[in-house]
Amino acid sequence: MRIAVDAMGGDNAPREIVAGAILAAKEYNIDILLVGDEELINQELKKKSSETLSNVFVCNAEESILMDESPSQAVRRKRKSSIHVGLKLVKKGEASAFFSAGNTGAVMAASKLILRTLDGVDRPAIATVFPNEKGNTVMLDVGANVDCKANHFLQFAIMGSAYAKFILNKENPRVSLLSIGEEDVKGNEITKNVFTLLKQFNGINFIGNIEGKEIFKGETDVIVCDGFAGNVALKTIEATATYIGKMLKEELTRTFRTKLGALLAKPAFENIKNRSDYTEYGGAPLLGVNGISIIGHGSSNDNAVKNAIRVAKELSEKKVNKYIEENILNAYKLLEVDKTDSFWENIIGRFRK
Amino acid sequence: MRIAVDAMGGDNAPREIVAGAILAAKEYNIDILLVGDEELINQELKKKSSETLSNVFVCNAEESILMDESPSQAVRRKRKSSIHVGLKLVKKGEASAFFSAGNTGAVMAASKLILRTLDGVDRPAIATVFPNEKGNTVMLDVGANVDCKANHFLQFAIMGSAYAKFILNKENPRVSLLSIGEEDVKGNEITKNVFTLLKQFNGINFIGNIEGKEIFKGETDVIVCDGFAGNVALKTIEATATYIGKMLKEELTRTFRTKLGALLAKPAFENIKNRSDYTEYGGAPLLGVNGISIIGHGSSNDNAVKNAIRVAKELSEKKVNKYIEENILNAYKLLEVDKTDSFWENIIGRFRK
Repeated sequence: MRIAVDAMGGDNAPREIVAGAILAAKEYNIDILLVGDEELINQELKKKSSETLSNVFVCNAEESILMDESPSQAVRRKRKSSIHVGLKLVKKGEASAFFSAGNTGAVMAASKLILRTLDGVDRPAIATVFPNEKGNTVMLDVGANVDCKANHFLQFAIMGSAYAKFILNKENPRVSLLSIGEEDVKGNEITKNVFTLLKQFNGINFIGNIEGKEIFKGETDVIVCDGFAGNVALKTIEATATYIGKMLKEELTRTFRTKLGALLAKPAFENIKNRSDYTEYGGAPLLGVNGISIIGHGSSNDNAVKNAIRVAKELSEKKVNKYIEENILNAYKLLEVDKTDSFWENIIGRFRK
Repeated sequence: MRIAVDAMGGDNAPREIVAGAILAAKEYNIDILLVGDEELINQELKKKSSETLSNVFVCNAEESILMDESPSQAVRRKRKSSIHVGLKLVKKGEASAFFSAGNTGAVMAASKLILRTLDGVDRPAIATVFPNEKGNTVMLDVGANVDCKANHFLQFAIMGSAYAKFILNKENPRVSLLSIGEEDVKGNEITKNVFTLLKQFNGINFIGNIEGKEIFKGETDVIVCDGFAGNVALKTIEATATYIGKMLKEELTRTFRTKLGALLAKPAFENIKNRSDYTEYGGAPLLGVNGISIIGHGSSNDNAVKNAIRVAKELSEKKVNKYIEENILNAYKLLEVDKTDSFWENIIGRFRK
């Protein structure tokens, strides 16, 4: 198996990307194809490893898309970018998956453009994993689709279930809908429709609405939402954690006594850091494209890159895309309608009555 | 001035409510009217205070709405509830404001029903204050209105500005729109329309979009959003803080060393608790109703009740509702259109082009 890695994407590229690729090459016994400025990559490879690794290769890309470039323009204009080159390798079957910690919007747009979507999928979605009191949860969409229809939510639910089953190893993943109350009737117009649709559909293990306040309780495996609410929730989690961290630092360094306390309590803080370490979760896959494309946090370090490559490998080995496609096509059958143009409209219309 | 307080609402009612009312009566030199089961209230009053307070009164209400009752049914059926009686006192001018830590949905529904809205306001909104790195921020709506049009957001912006100006004492409050990117073009269909509208409108100090990750930075005074996104954000903040708190407790009690560390660091943890103490913020006002109605957290203790009464007093003294009404009517003038039926549709239609 060969995984293409965007060596130019991310705040710490190519250093951390190359370092992570080397870790993955050693640990997972797969081929890694580093895509980007050949010269820069080779320099990094020399710095990191005295031996020449037989399973790390370099594929030159003449351009690279910057972190703050306009995604739509960059994707149109820089067709020789490391993102384009890497995704084309997947498209042509020369790589099994692509990972980039670069410009999220550009990776998303280029993935959709080059890989296209799986049969039956209208909108690819970004899935992200975060820890909870009992394990972890995958949430989608967290930013790819801001205005969604009920059928898109159903597709997210199927894709999220597949991810939870194969990558998070949950037997029969519980799926919840992000809303503002647990009762069936709570939510806005779209989530109420989605609730009805998901409840009617037997292809997933839908357990109902979930409120923001429940997301860390560990009572669900998959949280389904549109990209607006998902992005708000995800960024709010990050913001709250950062804010609490800052307050802790400020208050713990205020006096000698609290400084000493912090020193003694250090193992506890380190455990918390480990328990909520996003670099363990292997990036955020863009589920629903016809191929594997994983997006990393801009600040990805070597461990984040390594784990994203691990997830890419697992997604490929376990043929998760095939499973998603089958399940979405199966949804058409379970819902007992033909896949016609007005198919989803029918469902929503029918269930709404 | 006389403030009506729902003695029956909240998880710790009437105990904490009566206690908070006594604190407020002593500190603010105003009359407090405790509404609810006369006997229960008098029992609590005797327990709390040996002296008879000359400015605490009791107003009997035969019914009370339970915390988990269906709001719409309860408001329709229990017309003699403490919530109804308290709000009617405001309506009749016998009290300047009403506070309840009871069933949020019921307080909201009864407030709208009994007090009606201010002239020009379509949708009252729940405003909530939370701390940030530099002070505090008011966010609205956090749950009263799940599906909003652009004009509702504009009204929220005006009401939030008034709250920030008079209650949080911000000179020229900065208003932001909760979205999923800072750029003008980011967001979903509705937030993009709202962005255009708020940018065109000179009556508030609109500074642009704010992402979830920026909400604690202290760069804005008012965050405007619909009740769905606002509720997701607010509940997610609570959930994240609770989750981190639980992890801290677990990890700090794991070994003797970390326990000792925690003991020494205790003043730091207490400072953090104080810095993020919601009981200081005085409840969440339902802005936009023709009268003052403040909703408290179900778990409100005496301090939360006292501070909510303080905010009720300030809202009344500073005539914030009059200011809101004038500013919303002024918005019609600033936007150079008459207040006709199709008024707001015109604005949105015009700006969209």
